[in-house]
Amino acid sequence: MNPLSKSKIKYIKSLQLKKNRVHEGRFIVEGGKSVTEFLKSDFTVVALVATAEFYAKTNAGLYPADCYVTGADTLATLGTFKSNNTALAIVATCPATEPLPGQDEFILAVDGLNDPGNLGTIIRIADWFGIRKVLLSNGSVEVYNPKVVSATKGSLTRVAVYYVDLPTVLATYPGQVYAAAMAGEDLANVEPVRAGVLVLGSESHGISAALSPYITRNLTIPRQGGAESLNVAVAAGIICYHLLQ
Amino acid sequence: MNPLSKSKIKYIKSLQLKKNRVHEGRFIVEGGKSVTEFLKSDFTVVALVATAEFYAKTNAGLYPADCYVTGADTLATLGTFKSNNTALAIVATCPATEPLPGQDEFILAVDGLNDPGNLGTIIRIADWFGIRKVLLSNGSVEVYNPKVVSATKGSLTRVAVYYVDLPTVLATYPGQVYAAAMAGEDLANVEPVRAGVLVLGSESHGISAALSPYITRNLTIPRQGGAESLNVAVAAGIICYHLLQ
Repeated sequence: MNPLSKSKIKYIKSLQLKKNRVHEGRFIVEGGKSVTEFLKSDFTVVALVATAEFYAKTNAGLYPADCYVTGADTLATLGTFKSNNTALAIVATCPATEPLPGQDEFILAVDGLNDPGNLGTIIRIADWFGIRKVLLSNGSVEVYNPKVVSATKGSLTRVAVYYVDLPTVLATYPGQVYAAAMAGEDLANVEPVRAGVLVLGSESHGISAALSPYITRNLTIPRQGGAESLNVAVAAGIICYHLLQ
Repeated sequence: MNPLSKSKIKYIKSLQLKKNRVHEGRFIVEGGKSVTEFLKSDFTVVALVATAEFYAKTNAGLYPADCYVTGADTLATLGTFKSNNTALAIVATCPATEPLPGQDEFILAVDGLNDPGNLGTIIRIADWFGIRKVLLSNGSVEVYNPKVVSATKGSLTRVAVYYVDLPTVLATYPGQVYAAAMAGEDLANVEPVRAGVLVLGSESHGISAALSPYITRNLTIPRQGGAESLNVAVAAGIICYHLLQ
């Protein structure tokens, strides 16, 4: 158990910026629940900064070699949370090997999404419905952004996220490619499935034109009121619920 | 069209704090799309700050008496958006008259929700599914918080939000009171309805004990993977989709 040096504090804070996360191959995980999930996962936790209480409650077999003990005040200054009285972990990013979606699985493909909270929530939805892979277009928000990591509530440990060139992947995919659309088939009339790709577009621009040739079924959640659209994560949740029931 | 004085700038910025919103009975709406929806709504827009381009595109009949023209740089400093090259409106809050839910309508009741993005997204879901009322427990995040307003994407102009003492309201409500629960009835087996109350609990503590005597049906979205829970707004969207289809 080491004291936190000024240079270590500076290093941890530097991981709030994408360029430093990319350069170092490291990202931060905040909050005791999420940190515990990462400690138990296949991710490599490089260092742990936590309160004495957190260490006392956590199986010592899970501790990484590099451990620091500190107070809640310091913990909160290291990350993006307003308060954090438990733990923060520095975790190694995973190299993104490029998978082709298997023909017998259902996966999500996220195209140009900008909002970190939405991406995190979508990864959490995938985890809830047993979806194991999320493909991210290269233009989407970075998955190691602290707000994405936090919004996944630990689901990032169970859902594999891959950066891919989506048109290339979808061009050779033989199964159904679903998308949420304003004027497609009524979702209620679409039969549940076990395999396929659900494409989710950006909050403001929808699905990019480069992908539309590969969409085989446009699905619509019927609107009964005045809102112009649903939040993309909410739409994803409803479509996954319906298709995977 | 007036120039923006320093005191007006200070006043607008002061509305980022709840105590000032409550004291003044005013809140801010940011972004051209949302501002336009409020200009067309029953809300009273007290003042409008916008770029010349926004004024040129907007029907002059919608302008309030108090109008200011400014550049995108100044606009962004007035509110909470990182950038805003369209408009910001100062809008009068609505007095919260206390309604009893009608026996022939479906409404939402939000209990102790903390996250402004979640509340805004829930109001947007209500609007999508034609739900006209959202009851908020007094302990929930304030509906005029700029992050709530922004996340509603204009739906706040069509959905009435009331602060109520939820146990008091539910105690006299004769219809079904639904709630999302971890071990309730499988949602898929619940028949669609036209009337009822759906109670949504806080992100960390769920539904408060004071409300549980009034819940008549606990609904469960079956889990197929590892996530501990779904985001509350996503769960709300799925349940509304199913019950109101």
